[in-house]
Amino acid sequence: MKSATEYLWFNTAKKRDYINITPDVQRVVAKSGIKEGLVLVSAMHITAGVYVNDAEDGLILDIDEWLERLAPFKSSYQHHRTGESNGDAHLKSLLIHHEVLVPVTGGKLDFGPWQQIYYAEFDGQRKKRVIVKVLGG
Amino acid sequence: MKSATEYLWFNTAKKRDYINITPDVQRVVAKSGIKEGLVLVSAMHITAGVYVNDAEDGLILDIDEWLERLAPFKSSYQHHRTGESNGDAHLKSLLIHHEVLVPVTGGKLDFGPWQQIYYAEFDGQRKKRVIVKVLGG
Amino acid sequence: MKSATEYLWFNTAKKRDYINITPDVQRVVAKSGIKEGLVLVSAMHITAGVYVNDAEDGLILDIDEWLERLAPFKSSYQHHRTGESNGDAHLKSLLIHHEVLVPVTGGKLDFGPWQQIYYAEFDGQRKKRVIVKVLGG
Repeated sequence: MKSATEYLWFNTAKKRDYINITPDVQRVVAKSGIKEGLVLVSAMHITAGVYVNDAEDGLILDIDEWLERLAPFKSSYQHHRTGESNGDAHLKSLLIHHEVLVPVTGGKLDFGPWQQIYYAEFDGQRKKRVIVKVLGG
Repeated sequence: MKSATEYLWFNTAKKRDYINITPDVQRVVAKSGIKEGLVLVSAMHITAGVYVNDAEDGLILDIDEWLERLAPFKSSYQHHRTGESNGDAHLKSLLIHHEVLVPVTGGKLDFGPWQQIYYAEFDGQRKKRVIVKVLGG
Repeated sequence: MKSATEYLWFNTAKKRDYINITPDVQRVVAKSGIKEGLVLVSAMHITAGVYVNDAEDGLILDIDEWLERLAPFKSSYQHHRTGESNGDAHLKSLLIHHEVLVPVTGGKLDFGPWQQIYYAEFDGQRKKRVIVKVLGG
């Protein structure tokens, strides 16, 4: 069994942002030499997410609006008694989920034609990390 | 380390449908000969999902109605500027999630008494695929 | 390849509850002797979830209120024709998701500073289980 671990760093200019990290994950898989296995892509923060969907700008706007509708920014979260103001970012992270697991076949991400991996930032403008961990043989 | 990969094909008569694929996944696991490991079941499309819950017809109606309430079909998605009309199917896929990872113990799906794996189609009436990938020993 | 499997048991006093199980998962990983791998933490019931987020009491209240807003308790679910009254618990499980996969690096959970694993009970006051399965080397 082989494994490989790398960390991707982000520091977005905007509070919320959506970044296609598919090439980064493919690069980690290629470097690992693993041909058959699984690659975990997981945010290391509780106000960010990782998801798989389409690289289409209109859809990304729809996703952002939808997340804001179901997990809105507001001042009244109990979490804000700690001095924080990012309660909505925690709920958005839970809604979109903080990780995906991607199959690796023949040394490549075994994806359908439109699948892309996105890092979703909900409380940016500071340094944050994603772990990419490949396991297989 | 051993691995096995198979693809399940779907072409549903309805636009939205929910199909119990537990026996198919169990069959792939049995054929792999893997006794201890993990099996990933992941939609290869961005308008479909895979989830684990109960095989109960009433609940499936509730899930469908709930997904429509939280991620409704409507014409005004930005994604539709591309000519598509399936913005809701992308959001439903994100909400239910596109994949599950199931533990394999003693050569079988290590599930509680009511857990079943479902393929959730949100934009059907065409050929679509799910990957089943087992990793273990 | 090595693997290890343990089951955590719960029987909460309340119908809904949120329990930090990070130390339990870390203990299973340490006992397994696995240094590099992945650990799956997955509810074995369809009315419970497992998620990763902050160990902050205010936030847990926010999460509970948010789940109730998006997947409310009500009598009119179709699932209730079976005699059950826990339709909301199934939907809450789907929303928060029933499992997480955590990377293991150097024999430890490879987490960011605030990440903690929670068991989320949505239909408690009876015995329920979570599987913890580590795979790696």
